[in-house]
Amino acid sequence: MTEYQMKLVDKFIAVRNKTVSLTEPLTVEDMLVQVGNDTSPVRWHLAHTTWFFEKFILSTFVKGYKKFNEKYDYLFNSYYETVGNFFPKNLRGTQSRPGVDEILKYRKYIDDNILRNESILENPAIHSLIELGINHEQQHQELMLMDIKFNFFNNPILPVYTKISKFPKYSSRPLKYKRIKGGEYEIGSSGNEFKFDNEYPRHKVYLEDFEIGDRLVTNKEYLEFMRDGCYENPKLWLSDGWSWINRENIRSPLYWIKEGDYYSQFNLDGKGKLNPEDPVSHLSYYEADAYATWAGKRLPTEEEWEVAFMNEPITKNENFIENNFFKPLPPCSHSATQAMGDLWEWTRSAYLPYPRSKPLEGSVGEYNHKFMSGQMVLRGGSCVTPREHIRHTYRNFFTPEKRWMFSGLRLAGDVE
Amino acid sequence: MTEYQMKLVDKFIAVRNKTVSLTEPLTVEDMLVQVGNDTSPVRWHLAHTTWFFEKFILSTFVKGYKKFNEKYDYLFNSYYETVGNFFPKNLRGTQSRPGVDEILKYRKYIDDNILRNESILENPAIHSLIELGINHEQQHQELMLMDIKFNFFNNPILPVYTKISKFPKYSSRPLKYKRIKGGEYEIGSSGNEFKFDNEYPRHKVYLEDFEIGDRLVTNKEYLEFMRDGCYENPKLWLSDGWSWINRENIRSPLYWIKEGDYYSQFNLDGKGKLNPEDPVSHLSYYEADAYATWAGKRLPTEEEWEVAFMNEPITKNENFIENNFFKPLPPCSHSATQAMGDLWEWTRSAYLPYPRSKPLEGSVGEYNHKFMSGQMVLRGGSCVTPREHIRHTYRNFFTPEKRWMFSGLRLAGDVE
Amino acid sequence: MTEYQMKLVDKFIAVRNKTVSLTEPLTVEDMLVQVGNDTSPVRWHLAHTTWFFEKFILSTFVKGYKKFNEKYDYLFNSYYETVGNFFPKNLRGTQSRPGVDEILKYRKYIDDNILRNESILENPAIHSLIELGINHEQQHQELMLMDIKFNFFNNPILPVYTKISKFPKYSSRPLKYKRIKGGEYEIGSSGNEFKFDNEYPRHKVYLEDFEIGDRLVTNKEYLEFMRDGCYENPKLWLSDGWSWINRENIRSPLYWIKEGDYYSQFNLDGKGKLNPEDPVSHLSYYEADAYATWAGKRLPTEEEWEVAFMNEPITKNENFIENNFFKPLPPCSHSATQAMGDLWEWTRSAYLPYPRSKPLEGSVGEYNHKFMSGQMVLRGGSCVTPREHIRHTYRNFFTPEKRWMFSGLRLAGDVE
Amino acid sequence: MTEYQMKLVDKFIAVRNKTVSLTEPLTVEDMLVQVGNDTSPVRWHLAHTTWFFEKFILSTFVKGYKKFNEKYDYLFNSYYETVGNFFPKNLRGTQSRPGVDEILKYRKYIDDNILRNESILENPAIHSLIELGINHEQQHQELMLMDIKFNFFNNPILPVYTKISKFPKYSSRPLKYKRIKGGEYEIGSSGNEFKFDNEYPRHKVYLEDFEIGDRLVTNKEYLEFMRDGCYENPKLWLSDGWSWINRENIRSPLYWIKEGDYYSQFNLDGKGKLNPEDPVSHLSYYEADAYATWAGKRLPTEEEWEVAFMNEPITKNENFIENNFFKPLPPCSHSATQAMGDLWEWTRSAYLPYPRSKPLEGSVGEYNHKFMSGQMVLRGGSCVTPREHIRHTYRNFFTPEKRWMFSGLRLAGDVE
Repeated sequence: MTEYQMKLVDKFIAVRNKTVSLTEPLTVEDMLVQVGNDTSPVRWHLAHTTWFFEKFILSTFVKGYKKFNEKYDYLFNSYYETVGNFFPKNLRGTQSRPGVDEILKYRKYIDDNILRNESILENPAIHSLIELGINHEQQHQELMLMDIKFNFFNNPILPVYTKISKFPKYSSRPLKYKRIKGGEYEIGSSGNEFKFDNEYPRHKVYLEDFEIGDRLVTNKEYLEFMRDGCYENPKLWLSDGWSWINRENIRSPLYWIKEGDYYSQFNLDGKGKLNPEDPVSHLSYYEADAYATWAGKRLPTEEEWEVAFMNEPITKNENFIENNFFKPLPPCSHSATQAMGDLWEWTRSAYLPYPRSKPLEGSVGEYNHKFMSGQMVLRGGSCVTPREHIRHTYRNFFTPEKRWMFSGLRLAGDVE
Repeated sequence: MTEYQMKLVDKFIAVRNKTVSLTEPLTVEDMLVQVGNDTSPVRWHLAHTTWFFEKFILSTFVKGYKKFNEKYDYLFNSYYETVGNFFPKNLRGTQSRPGVDEILKYRKYIDDNILRNESILENPAIHSLIELGINHEQQHQELMLMDIKFNFFNNPILPVYTKISKFPKYSSRPLKYKRIKGGEYEIGSSGNEFKFDNEYPRHKVYLEDFEIGDRLVTNKEYLEFMRDGCYENPKLWLSDGWSWINRENIRSPLYWIKEGDYYSQFNLDGKGKLNPEDPVSHLSYYEADAYATWAGKRLPTEEEWEVAFMNEPITKNENFIENNFFKPLPPCSHSATQAMGDLWEWTRSAYLPYPRSKPLEGSVGEYNHKFMSGQMVLRGGSCVTPREHIRHTYRNFFTPEKRWMFSGLRLAGDVE
Repeated sequence: MTEYQMKLVDKFIAVRNKTVSLTEPLTVEDMLVQVGNDTSPVRWHLAHTTWFFEKFILSTFVKGYKKFNEKYDYLFNSYYETVGNFFPKNLRGTQSRPGVDEILKYRKYIDDNILRNESILENPAIHSLIELGINHEQQHQELMLMDIKFNFFNNPILPVYTKISKFPKYSSRPLKYKRIKGGEYEIGSSGNEFKFDNEYPRHKVYLEDFEIGDRLVTNKEYLEFMRDGCYENPKLWLSDGWSWINRENIRSPLYWIKEGDYYSQFNLDGKGKLNPEDPVSHLSYYEADAYATWAGKRLPTEEEWEVAFMNEPITKNENFIENNFFKPLPPCSHSATQAMGDLWEWTRSAYLPYPRSKPLEGSVGEYNHKFMSGQMVLRGGSCVTPREHIRHTYRNFFTPEKRWMFSGLRLAGDVE
Repeated sequence: MTEYQMKLVDKFIAVRNKTVSLTEPLTVEDMLVQVGNDTSPVRWHLAHTTWFFEKFILSTFVKGYKKFNEKYDYLFNSYYETVGNFFPKNLRGTQSRPGVDEILKYRKYIDDNILRNESILENPAIHSLIELGINHEQQHQELMLMDIKFNFFNNPILPVYTKISKFPKYSSRPLKYKRIKGGEYEIGSSGNEFKFDNEYPRHKVYLEDFEIGDRLVTNKEYLEFMRDGCYENPKLWLSDGWSWINRENIRSPLYWIKEGDYYSQFNLDGKGKLNPEDPVSHLSYYEADAYATWAGKRLPTEEEWEVAFMNEPITKNENFIENNFFKPLPPCSHSATQAMGDLWEWTRSAYLPYPRSKPLEGSVGEYNHKFMSGQMVLRGGSCVTPREHIRHTYRNFFTPEKRWMFSGLRLAGDVE
């Protein structure tokens, strides 16, 4: 095996193991449930990430490959229309079989087939699919924690995923703005490292002068917005946002629990006092936009964000899943800007194709481009994103009312 | 203890154990899931039947009783508005905690408290509540099997609850009608045995001459109705029924699976060939009514049904849950009429209060009377009803579109 | 022509003219609109009642009959599935063509064809269809006023249908109960006069001793129920009713308008002070039932109602559409009981077929029987019912949450 | 009066009269109806455009101004949250009062008050509001024709708005592409002419080389897409679009009527043969995007569109509302590109704020910016747009599934 191949195998094994290790704090029951239409059961994540390797690699490239179970194509396909029908997403939580043990056997069967099959590891055409599968699985690691948090929050018992022994004692600091000079810039990915097909080609953009906040907005700052009656003031809201907060009776970010005059917050370590210094999290685009309007600012575009933070470090200090905090923290001395990690940052850019962008060939072309309508871009990764998964050019996307992902808010502004 | 008390204790223990024993073929996962808004997770049935004893007996009558968990009043109340709020029914399947083990501990805690508390067993005022709780739990034994069947059917893998080694080789026989002379009759329950508050007082009714089928309608007979295009013929259907079959795209009874030109049927022992001699089961009221109209007959009223079958035997031959077939069978030599057991029989009677009927005092008054609108009466018990639970005067009830209970169809007619 | 035929012609002409005369206070715009899924535009009522004669008489019996417009079978069929498709009910208010003038031409065309065609008037087989058509149109006269009231109420301008110069100054009186001895009685229609196919055959029923109120419940009495917090007390409500009032946020009868601490009421003569002596009107079955429960009474069955009031007079004093009050009044000296006219009275009887009841032959068999599920019976006619249309055996029916008909409430009770 | 003021008055009068003249072919009934949640009754357009002048000018600036009717603020406000509550949009078609005559009186009352009030015409601060009101009313002229077309299409009688005596006999021609060199460009409005607040400031953008079609895609070309099975091929569709066409059972553009193997098309002059040379119209963004994907092309961005067509003429030859065709036509010799008029052209740009863009001050700030989420930009005006209303920088916007506006499709492509 080449060094690249060895590294790929190591990464494959590490990521596959990491996924299972994230389920250690869970009971079998915890792995079954699904609340609402956004989440999926943990059990399903374990199976679907496995199916991805089976369908797009083993079934496609390995002659005589024998499927683990013929029904899994139907049960564990997420949304790949061009490879066949799939089980309705909103009913995943109604399925008790295959059970968790059977799914773990499925994982082993697929891992063995991938790792013991030289024709796979030696076929360069397949390497990129393995990389895609690894990155896909890292995305589902984040999704699993998002879903566990949402499912637990909707249980009146408010279960704890894992106790955190010690959070660092960072505190926030006054918000300052970094000024960026307008002109032509390049954004987007180039080079040979793995990247998704929505991140390239690298291309020129023209930006006006702008300023951008040097940290995320905090709970304390967001509380001022709330106490100023902003959830009752239509002037601040996008029309769809105003309809949404009134239809859904939204009066605070997700996971805030009003208790008398104060708020608690639910996190993966359970319910606790709302820390005013923490970055405000689990906001919709509508709330982020309304806050910015109220503050006399705006959200950055994704181009501005990338230009501003393209040299931001990604070290052990940035708050990613490996730090095991599973919640955003105030800016530490090192990660001054919080651009990478902590929280995905809403931009005011719609999720649309880059100039000359093309989806991947084949069914994996459904991975990204078909979602390019109705969604907004978020940047920077979060405290439940794997550190090796993120890039400065990485484009995450959600519809504007979603809040169960670890989303946050950074201000930007025009410069006269 | 009096003999009555000893019997009550024995029955309590037997019924409580029976409930748990019904879960033996299930995995933990199977006990979590809920499909649709009618069913509940098995896990919830185990807890709710326990809560019933806790809430209406221990919390009410036992001084200083310490609840197992303060949140269970909210989590395991089903619909008793007068005792407090309750968790939304349609979300029961989204709850992973308390887990199955914890619920089994809850059952033991309550059983111990009931059985070790002399003040309970010696208080005659409480006996009727224990009897109510026992009967309530028997109803949930039936509901559990209904729900397991429905949940499994909605899993593409079609899991098997339990294999049945040997079904008896009964075959059906020509349908005959029993003629009943009109006039004044008495129906309803009297006497001191346990009965629900919807079954009494015993009262007079005036009936015209009528005839009633001596067995249930079979799959074979129902297939003729289907092959005559009756699901496409509005002339045969109640208006609500016609809307319903078209809106829901209903073209056969529940649990029938079209495979080419033939039908399979899903039962608790898995998918198998549709047996034409078996009684047709899992019908809505609309389908039962349309069939009767097509056949030039009608459904019996509940008064006619009770008058016709008030002396029907309830022996080991009638097909109840204890027979462990979990599906209806053709009439055996003994249970000639199938009136008791096999399938609940739709009547053309709306579920309404009997003359001078009164709900029970207190919150258990919510048990029956508040459901007296929009529902139709079914009679006779089914193959998943506990034999000791049923009576000739027993009134079951469902809204007319429901099909997941073990419902069937008996014809009646006018006599000129 | 025979005397019968002449009478039939006179009645046909009178009823057809009456329908149009009811539209005199309306603008063209008023005849177009439809609020909600229960009502229809006046324009549609004018056309549909006409279509009824065209479809079931002219198109069926008259050789070479030329339809006024081929599309009207689709546009103006209400719900007769066996004669073809029909335009969706909830969209009737979206149709501007044919306009009101064209529909009045249609009415004239059909009237001329009916009246100038001797083969129709001399064919006894058709007489019953003409009678049915006349009675059908009388039902739509009542529906038109129900719908106009509802449509106007949903316009913030609260238009007035017609000013009433002078209401009689009746006042209510203490509620007394009439006792009826139990035993065998006969109810239902016999004889040759016109009646609907849901009213016969006349048949025996067995009743227990009961008592029944000698007048309707008043607004004043209903206000006591409201002020006793009864819309917030689940103990009093049927389960479906409790869900309904909370889902729809119902806190008073329809057409009551809360203004500070008092209520106004909307009637066809516009908004005015709620008269405490008037019978409480526009109640759902759920509200009627809850009131009766609160009062320690119950609603009468339809059999009890008929037995109690079978000899009630129908004179000019009873409050029907011809009196032009279009609202219920307190009991006058003559119409002591208010049984006939004023308001339809909810009974606790489900709308089900009488013993040996059969629908009419042919498509008009869809008139009544197909609605025999999910509905409750109301008796006695209302202030917007044509006097000649009503009978003591008349069975009206609505689903239990409906309130836009002129419904009211009479108490009954058991007698020990 | 200054010349500017005189021009403004002339334009005000002309536009106000034009609106009413568009209703000449309609009956009173036609002006009442509303189908679906997108359209409004013509009656409402007449009133709302009038209310706009009353609310934002007369009520705001004229001392002692007496409102025509106090309820109109509630009834005829469309969506201005900051000026008060408004009547639900989807129920506008349920309102018969004020009737059409009353609304015409309202129009006259407001026109008189605007025109006879010197303080208005001489106040420069108000001029821009009058211009806004005029442009607002022009938008509603287009909306009225969109809504009439939709309402008539949903009437099985398929009424005709107006017969067109003679369409010009243009035919289409082979599609060619215009190449545009990449680099820095300026787009957006500058200068003093009226423009909406979403069109400026003028700003720089960087574009890659691209090509853009020199005419709209035709019905004939779109039929090839349909006959290639593209409505059944998920590979071509955005995910939301695929869900939408399947949920709504979309298989052709709006207003196409399948008749056997051929299609007719409904236009404001009634139903007629589909002209293969006409531009394909009434497409959703999803359909436009899928067509472009199938054709190996893409939609242009709004920046590309503006750069490509910024010098396109707007003469009498371009097909606008004044031409009275009310449908798009093939490209004539003069209007070679169809960029201005004929059909609004979907771009692949989301409707978002321009750099340094700010909403207008006050409640009219709700006009545009609050809709900047979930919508896509369309450019160029249509055959029902007033010629004087359009500009090259004009940004129209709709959510991607909308089709009742006169939308069409122009292809663009990358250049290697």
